[in-house]
Amino acid sequence: MQKSVEGFVKNFSEIEEMPMPGGSAIRWLITHKDGAPTFSMRLITVGKGKNTPYHSHDYEHEIFVVSGKCMVTLGNTEKIASEGDFIFIPPNLRHGMTATEDMKIICIVPIKAAKEILGE
Amino acid sequence: MQKSVEGFVKNFSEIEEMPMPGGSAIRWLITHKDGAPTFSMRLITVGKGKNTPYHSHDYEHEIFVVSGKCMVTLGNTEKIASEGDFIFIPPNLRHGMTATEDMKIICIVPIKAAKEILGE
Repeated sequence: MQKSVEGFVKNFSEIEEMPMPGGSAIRWLITHKDGAPTFSMRLITVGKGKNTPYHSHDYEHEIFVVSGKCMVTLGNTEKIASEGDFIFIPPNLRHGMTATEDMKIICIVPIKAAKEILGE
Repeated sequence: MQKSVEGFVKNFSEIEEMPMPGGSAIRWLITHKDGAPTFSMRLITVGKGKNTPYHSHDYEHEIFVVSGKCMVTLGNTEKIASEGDFIFIPPNLRHGMTATEDMKIICIVPIKAAKEILGE
């Protein structure tokens, strides 16, 4: 029998923070383990001078900068992103971010990515 | 020939705000029109005392409260959500929000929903 899926309200601080290479840290706020069928919401914090991995993958990111400021690498270009900005990273584009101020972002990925990274 | 898809950084204020029933307003930050394959990011603002539509649909929402505070209806329950909280609304759960302080939220939907609402 399929587990019934319930809606909820939680605070990001209730979710365990996991370190990432480069000195950033991630919280998986909503995943397939909560019954989300299509996409997964993560909160990533990056301290000033730290970075997220510079990498690419076959799925997209959609990012909203909740607070702080960073330099974003998108393929061969570099851009500044700060509070209130949003970032679209299409599949297979190399990307990374270096925080120039302590930064907090929401970063969405397809459930496929969440399952690859976290397991089923 | 398929249009090539580029990454970008933009500010939410660059995107046209569209009114919604109940006095809220929506900006579609990233959609299929930008080449997003799986999900769509929207920014919704709700002034104090205003609300989002009370409705249900066959797709999910994942919401992050960027600022402000609201009362969220999830089926037969009511909960408070404020800055730093996140909300999971599974498919087919009736939901709505009434702002108790001016509120700004990020709300993600599958691309299927973006296409239904905005057209192909």
